[in-house]
Amino acid sequence: MDIHINKNLTLTENPYKERARMLISCPDGPGIVAAVSYFLHQHGANIVQSDQYTMDPEGGMFFMRIEFDLSDLDQKFVELKGKFQEVATKFAMNWQIHNVSRKKRMAIFVSKEDHCLVELLWQWQAGDLDGEIAMVISNHPDMKDYVESFGIPYHMIPVTADTKKEAEQRQLEVIGDDIDVIILARYMQIISPTFIQRYRNRIINIHHSFLPAFVGGKPYAQAYQRGVKIIGATAHYVTEELDGGPIIEQDVQRVSHRDDVRELKRIGRTIERVVLARAVKWHIEDRILVHENKTVVFN
Amino acid sequence: MDIHINKNLTLTENPYKERARMLISCPDGPGIVAAVSYFLHQHGANIVQSDQYTMDPEGGMFFMRIEFDLSDLDQKFVELKGKFQEVATKFAMNWQIHNVSRKKRMAIFVSKEDHCLVELLWQWQAGDLDGEIAMVISNHPDMKDYVESFGIPYHMIPVTADTKKEAEQRQLEVIGDDIDVIILARYMQIISPTFIQRYRNRIINIHHSFLPAFVGGKPYAQAYQRGVKIIGATAHYVTEELDGGPIIEQDVQRVSHRDDVRELKRIGRTIERVVLARAVKWHIEDRILVHENKTVVFN
Amino acid sequence: MDIHINKNLTLTENPYKERARMLISCPDGPGIVAAVSYFLHQHGANIVQSDQYTMDPEGGMFFMRIEFDLSDLDQKFVELKGKFQEVATKFAMNWQIHNVSRKKRMAIFVSKEDHCLVELLWQWQAGDLDGEIAMVISNHPDMKDYVESFGIPYHMIPVTADTKKEAEQRQLEVIGDDIDVIILARYMQIISPTFIQRYRNRIINIHHSFLPAFVGGKPYAQAYQRGVKIIGATAHYVTEELDGGPIIEQDVQRVSHRDDVRELKRIGRTIERVVLARAVKWHIEDRILVHENKTVVFN
Amino acid sequence: MDIHINKNLTLTENPYKERARMLISCPDGPGIVAAVSYFLHQHGANIVQSDQYTMDPEGGMFFMRIEFDLSDLDQKFVELKGKFQEVATKFAMNWQIHNVSRKKRMAIFVSKEDHCLVELLWQWQAGDLDGEIAMVISNHPDMKDYVESFGIPYHMIPVTADTKKEAEQRQLEVIGDDIDVIILARYMQIISPTFIQRYRNRIINIHHSFLPAFVGGKPYAQAYQRGVKIIGATAHYVTEELDGGPIIEQDVQRVSHRDDVRELKRIGRTIERVVLARAVKWHIEDRILVHENKTVVFN
Repeated sequence: MDIHINKNLTLTENPYKERARMLISCPDGPGIVAAVSYFLHQHGANIVQSDQYTMDPEGGMFFMRIEFDLSDLDQKFVELKGKFQEVATKFAMNWQIHNVSRKKRMAIFVSKEDHCLVELLWQWQAGDLDGEIAMVISNHPDMKDYVESFGIPYHMIPVTADTKKEAEQRQLEVIGDDIDVIILARYMQIISPTFIQRYRNRIINIHHSFLPAFVGGKPYAQAYQRGVKIIGATAHYVTEELDGGPIIEQDVQRVSHRDDVRELKRIGRTIERVVLARAVKWHIEDRILVHENKTVVFN
Repeated sequence: MDIHINKNLTLTENPYKERARMLISCPDGPGIVAAVSYFLHQHGANIVQSDQYTMDPEGGMFFMRIEFDLSDLDQKFVELKGKFQEVATKFAMNWQIHNVSRKKRMAIFVSKEDHCLVELLWQWQAGDLDGEIAMVISNHPDMKDYVESFGIPYHMIPVTADTKKEAEQRQLEVIGDDIDVIILARYMQIISPTFIQRYRNRIINIHHSFLPAFVGGKPYAQAYQRGVKIIGATAHYVTEELDGGPIIEQDVQRVSHRDDVRELKRIGRTIERVVLARAVKWHIEDRILVHENKTVVFN
Repeated sequence: MDIHINKNLTLTENPYKERARMLISCPDGPGIVAAVSYFLHQHGANIVQSDQYTMDPEGGMFFMRIEFDLSDLDQKFVELKGKFQEVATKFAMNWQIHNVSRKKRMAIFVSKEDHCLVELLWQWQAGDLDGEIAMVISNHPDMKDYVESFGIPYHMIPVTADTKKEAEQRQLEVIGDDIDVIILARYMQIISPTFIQRYRNRIINIHHSFLPAFVGGKPYAQAYQRGVKIIGATAHYVTEELDGGPIIEQDVQRVSHRDDVRELKRIGRTIERVVLARAVKWHIEDRILVHENKTVVFN
Repeated sequence: MDIHINKNLTLTENPYKERARMLISCPDGPGIVAAVSYFLHQHGANIVQSDQYTMDPEGGMFFMRIEFDLSDLDQKFVELKGKFQEVATKFAMNWQIHNVSRKKRMAIFVSKEDHCLVELLWQWQAGDLDGEIAMVISNHPDMKDYVESFGIPYHMIPVTADTKKEAEQRQLEVIGDDIDVIILARYMQIISPTFIQRYRNRIINIHHSFLPAFVGGKPYAQAYQRGVKIIGATAHYVTEELDGGPIIEQDVQRVSHRDDVRELKRIGRTIERVVLARAVKWHIEDRILVHENKTVVFN
C-alpha cells in the first residue's frame, strides 16, 4: 500500500531539465574564473549561480560551484564534458559535472532508532529532498512496513559479530552500481575500510554530539556527565577514522541542569534529524567539496 | 589623551594594498560573468573571491561582488575604472569599484545611550572594523571625553524642535565632502528627506526590535506587552519611511516571562550592538547591494 | 493496519502513577508558598519540582507550578482537591490540579499541509508527547490512511462557506466531552467565538510567522517582500482576535536573499513543526499559565 | 580622570535594600520546601522568587534558590542567619544567605587581550553588573590607563617562569580578605592549586572553545583544523584540572569554510565576552550552585 506520494513526482514538467552544476577544485592561479565562464558562455550556457572560494590567494586552493542553464542539455551533455576536459587539464582541476534532471539515488541504512529515517522520508515525500530514495537497508525488521508504505524497497540484512563480512557483501550486492550516496541514518554498525574506499566522500553519517566533543558511543551520557549547557549533532562523511571524517553540518540546542540523559536524547533526536537532512540536501544538490579533511559547503 | 590605539594603525605594512572590490547589479543575461572575469584577467587581476546571485534566471536581476588583487593597483586604478565602463555600458550595469587600501570614512551619530558607540569604538580599536571613524556627532555632551580618549573628534550639535533645520545644516558642514557612511548608533532624532537623499543607502540605523514587528518608539515596552518569547534588533538603511528601509541584518535572543521591560532593554542592548557592528562591517567591506527595498548581502 | 506503536504504551509500569501537578495564580501576598508547601507536606506529598514567579512584588500577580509525588494518589486525589479549596479560597487562587497518570486527550485539526500533523504523530509514537491523540479532524480526506495507520480515528468533516456552522456543530459532536486540548496543526479555517469560548486557553494554533510581524495570510510572501533576514513561527492560544492570542512559544531561523518564497516556506515548515510540538508538550505537561493576554511558561 | 560613571551609583535610593537571597543544597527528602518557606513566613519575609530542582526524587540531591524581601533586613540579618541554622542542621543543608544590598566585590585578572575586560567594565558602568569591580590585576601594563579612567585600581604584577610563586603571593596580598569572586578575563597564566583551594568555586575562567572540544591552548587553530561549522566559548569555575571545572555557561556561533583562524578569533571574541559576562552576572546574583563537577544555574 502506497499511502505516501512524493509531491515532486506529481509535477507534470521538470522545472530544471536544462540545468547543470559543476564542482571544481584546483590549485589557485590567475584566469580560472575567466576560463570557466568564457567556456560556458561560448557553449551557450547561462550561469544562474556561481560561488567561489580561495583558501589562500598565494599558492592556495581554489574551489568553485557553478549552476547554469543550457538548452538541449541532454543532447549536449556528453560533448560538453569532453570539451571541458581541456580547460580542466590546463588548470589541473579536480572536477564534476551533474545534470540536475538526473536525480541522485540514495540508499538509507538504519538500525532501530527511526527518527532520522522518518525525517528523510517526510522531507522526500514533501518534495524538499530533490533525489530518489532507492532503498532502505536495515539490520532489523522494525521499519519494514513503514518504509514500504512509501513504495520504497526495504532490505533486511541481519548483522552479527560472525556474519559482518557476509552482511556487508550482501549490502553491496543490493546496492548495485547505481547508488550515488549512502546515508547512515543512525545505523549502529561500523563500516569496513573496503566499503568506505568504494564510496569515498559519499557516505554520510549522523553523530549524536557536537564533534569533536564526545567522540564514540553514548555521547548524551557523556554530555550529561560533563554538564554542558548546549548539545549538538554532527553530519560528516565517513572515513576510516571513527567520527573523524570531514564535517558537513552541525547544529546545537541549549539545555540545562533540568535535562537528564533521557531528555537530552529527546532534544538530541530533533537536532540529529535536522542536521542529517540538511547534509543530505546539500550533498544531492552538489553543494559540497571535500579538501583533505574539511568541507567547503556552498549553501 | 589617547589611551586607545587602533591595532590596525600599528601594522607596518598594509596587507591589502593591491586589492580592489567591485559591486555590480544589472539585468540578467548571458555572458556577464564571462565578460567581467575576462576583463579582469586581461588586465592582470587575480580574482580572490567572487559571489553572484540571480534573482530569477528569466528576466531577473543579476548581482555580483568580486574581490581581486592587482599589482600596482594605485597607479592603474583610474585607468581600470575608465576601461571597465565599456563593459558596464554593454550590460547596463549599476557598478562601483573600491580600492581596499583607501579606508571608508565613518561619521557616527549618537544621543545619550552609549552601548552601540562603545561597541563600534572597541571593534575599531581592536582592528575588527577596517575603516576610519572620522568623527562622532551628538546632540548631547555626555560622550565627549570618552570619544576624545580615542583621538576622535566629537562634535556636540544640540537639536531642539525649533533648531532642527539649523542643526542639520551644521551637521552637514561638519561632515563635509569626505564621509562614506553615516551610522546612527541610537541617535534618537528623525533625519530629514534632504539629508537622506544626499546619503542614499549610506545611512545605517539600528532599530531596537525585530522589524517589522514593533515599528516606532518604545519597542521593548511593546514586546513586553505582547508577551513575545524572542526579541531582536534590526540594522537597516534609512529611507523616507520610518523604520521601513532595506534591512541589512537582524538578530534575536530568547526571553521569558521573567524578563520585565528593564531586562528586555538590557538583553536588547547586546543584540543591538552586535547587529549594528555587523551591518557596519559589511558596508565598509562592500558586501551590500541594494535593490528596490531589499539588500543582497554577500558575507 | 497499525504500523506504528506508541512506545509509551509498551511500558509495563507507569513511572508516574503517584505524581500530580498543580498550577496556581493569585494576587501576590505573604505566606502563599508556605501555605501550599505546608499543606502538601501535611498530606504526605513530596515536592519534586516547584517553580514560582511574581510579576511584581508589590501588589502584582503570583504564579506557581508544583509537581509532587504522593503514594496512593488515585484514592486520595478527590479528597486532596476538596481540602485544598480552603487554602485556595484564603488566597483567592485560580488553580488546577492534574493527576499525571491520567493522560491529556488531544484532538488535532488539519487541512491539507501535513508537516505539523506528521511531527505530532511521530513525537507521540516516539513516546515524547505524553498524552493521547484521541482523533484527527480534517476538512480534507488526504491524511486519512496515514492517520489510521497509527490506529487513530480520522473524521473528515468538509467545510464550505455555506456549511461552516453545521460543520462546526459536527466537530463539537465528534469531540464530545472528553477532549482536553485542541491543536490546529495548520488548519486553515477560522474558529467561531462560540467554539473558542468553550475551549478557552485550550486551543493551540501555529502561525507561520514571528508574530506580531506578518499577521494574517501569506506571511512568507510578506517576509520575502520585506526582505527580513530571519523568519519564524509562533504557537499561541486562539482567541477572538485573529493571530492575537497569548503566545506560547516562538522560534526562528536565519535566511538570506537567496531564499525565495518557496524556500522560505520549506525552511518555515521545520520551524512550525518544532514550535507547535513544543507548545503542545508544555500544555499537556501543565507548564503554561495564562494571565490576561500573556503566558507564563515554566519549562 | 574618571570619564566613566557607574549608572547604579547615581541612584539616590537602593531599590533592593530589604532583599536577601538563599542558596540551599541538601539530600532530598519530604518537607524541605515547607520548612524553609514556613520559616521565612514566620519571620515576616515575603518570597518574591523561588526555584527548586531535585536531581532524582528517590535519594537524590535537592537544590533551592529563594529571593525574599524583609523589612529592616540589615538589623535582622545576623539573627535570621543564626535561627535558620536549626532548619539547616535538620536537613543537612549546605547553605548560604546573601544581603543583596551588600554588593559582591570582584577582582578581574587580565593579560594582554582586552575584549573581556572591556565588556565587563562597560556592563558594570551601564549598571548591568550589580557588583563592585574592586580592582584589576594584570601581568602587563597595557590596560592601566583605561582601567584607571573608570576610577578602578590597576595592579601590575609581572609573572615570569621564575617569579610565579612570588607573583601569586603578591596577588593574594593585593586581593586581601574582601574579594568575593575572581574573574580570569583572558588571563593567560595557570593558577596554583593553593590559590584555587582558597577561592573554591569563586574563580571564573573563560575558555575560548566549546568545551570539552579543544581543551588547552590554541582552540581556534584546532577548530579551523577540524573544520567545525560552529565555534563557541565556555565560562567555568577553575579547578585543579585544566579546563575541566564545572561549566557555568556556553554559547556558540555558526562559522563557515570562509572563516580563517584570524576570523574565527574575531568571531570568538564576541562569544567570549558575552558568555563570561553572563557567568559573572549569574555568580554575583547568587544564581549558581555547584554539585560535584556540575552547576545548577537558576536563571
